[in-house]
Amino acid sequence: MTRGRGTVYLVGAGPGDPGLITVRGREVLRMSEVIVYDRLVPPALLDEAPAWAERIPVGKHPRRHSTPQDAINAVLIDRAKSGFTVVRLKGGDPFVFGRGGEECEALRAAGVPCEVVPGITSAIAVPALAGIPVTDRRCASAFAVVTGHQCDDASAVDWDALARIPTLVVLMGFHAVAEIARRLVAHGLHPSTPAAVVSCGTMPGQRTVAGPLASIARLAHDAALAPPATLVVGDVVRLREILQDAGGGLPAVPTGIGVSR
Amino acid sequence: MTRGRGTVYLVGAGPGDPGLITVRGREVLRMSEVIVYDRLVPPALLDEAPAWAERIPVGKHPRRHSTPQDAINAVLIDRAKSGFTVVRLKGGDPFVFGRGGEECEALRAAGVPCEVVPGITSAIAVPALAGIPVTDRRCASAFAVVTGHQCDDASAVDWDALARIPTLVVLMGFHAVAEIARRLVAHGLHPSTPAAVVSCGTMPGQRTVAGPLASIARLAHDAALAPPATLVVGDVVRLREILQDAGGGLPAVPTGIGVSR
Repeated sequence: MTRGRGTVYLVGAGPGDPGLITVRGREVLRMSEVIVYDRLVPPALLDEAPAWAERIPVGKHPRRHSTPQDAINAVLIDRAKSGFTVVRLKGGDPFVFGRGGEECEALRAAGVPCEVVPGITSAIAVPALAGIPVTDRRCASAFAVVTGHQCDDASAVDWDALARIPTLVVLMGFHAVAEIARRLVAHGLHPSTPAAVVSCGTMPGQRTVAGPLASIARLAHDAALAPPATLVVGDVVRLREILQDAGGGLPAVPTGIGVSR
Repeated sequence: MTRGRGTVYLVGAGPGDPGLITVRGREVLRMSEVIVYDRLVPPALLDEAPAWAERIPVGKHPRRHSTPQDAINAVLIDRAKSGFTVVRLKGGDPFVFGRGGEECEALRAAGVPCEVVPGITSAIAVPALAGIPVTDRRCASAFAVVTGHQCDDASAVDWDALARIPTLVVLMGFHAVAEIARRLVAHGLHPSTPAAVVSCGTMPGQRTVAGPLASIARLAHDAALAPPATLVVGDVVRLREILQDAGGGLPAVPTGIGVSR
């Protein structure tokens, strides 16, 4: 008996809370035979797959060895051509800075069927569960999303344009917060523009520091926040005082002034 | 016997496909006693609530009567104070142009416990399932999201800044596609910039039209697309030729040149 060609499901695991995967995402996890997963996916989600399913970590870790994209593509294609149902589980949403497009393209080039299952992006959900809506009728009619990695290549991003969008969300930017703040102020944002850093968003260790843009890097450092972290810049950050603990009303973590879940 | 104070869950229903609600969102729907829902939420999700749960439509319909925000807030507070578990079910994500912040604020002012359950936003998932990733390492290092309603108030949005973000997604913009395209070209985008309109994204009637920005309004009109629709502008639209049918590989709908699921 030979098996047919397997499908690869490109699934967004969401921002960290395992309850924030989609119903469809969990459904395909439960029928998976192979899971190829990133470092930041919630461990509880791996338990949703059958116990006998093959689990292949391909985590990208900042400044450590990680699996090259070509090798990830190769393993997806190999397992699918062997007839297995493969879930490629990625943090957040596969198409928001997740190289999902490149993986999808490689699969199609190899003739492997591929289904995309979107995920909740940290860019929206992490601020939300820290009490910060990325839009608000009164103060933010648009938002933009970028990664901190863009700081490495000055030509890659138009910081002047980003500084003029009412809400800016920066993913994977923990080590670049000071540099990003400097650039935004250089491009016209007032140093007192409200900003917040949310560490471990939607997860049990979630902590938030808020303050003026010009001080936010120091405040985050003083509070000993650590990656993964999301930076939010704009007047919507002020709403946090009214909305905080929107994600279930857990008690504030008493670790410092201005630091709360 | 008296009941305690109920909680209001502000739940994002996702972009239309009922499988794209989160696991947590479906969980609270299944324990709800009252559902207060918008016009665009997937009907199948209402069936997840117990049969005896009270269902209150408060749909906002373009250019028709809709429930004022104050009345929505009042019904949420009333049912919660009567001790019921209330789900406020909103299309997409509650904090992406959903007035979720305002509802959350009103609930807190009334002393009603409120939990936010993020949803998949159409801004990312609708392009994704039409084969368009909003970011791509090769051509889009940032994206911005705005609504078509912003066209009604020229001062509300900085179109010059939006025109300089690599990927721009416009929600609720069907009737404003021509005006938005005109403004983006006036602010420096080339008339041939790739653009796409996705109608009924993630739903069975999904259709996509792609073409140059300067012609996209006419192409969408000629193809008889209708709202709800999502407009995407930027080089990522070109990836659609490689990635299309990413959402399950349904066959292209043979209704016209350049029109497909």
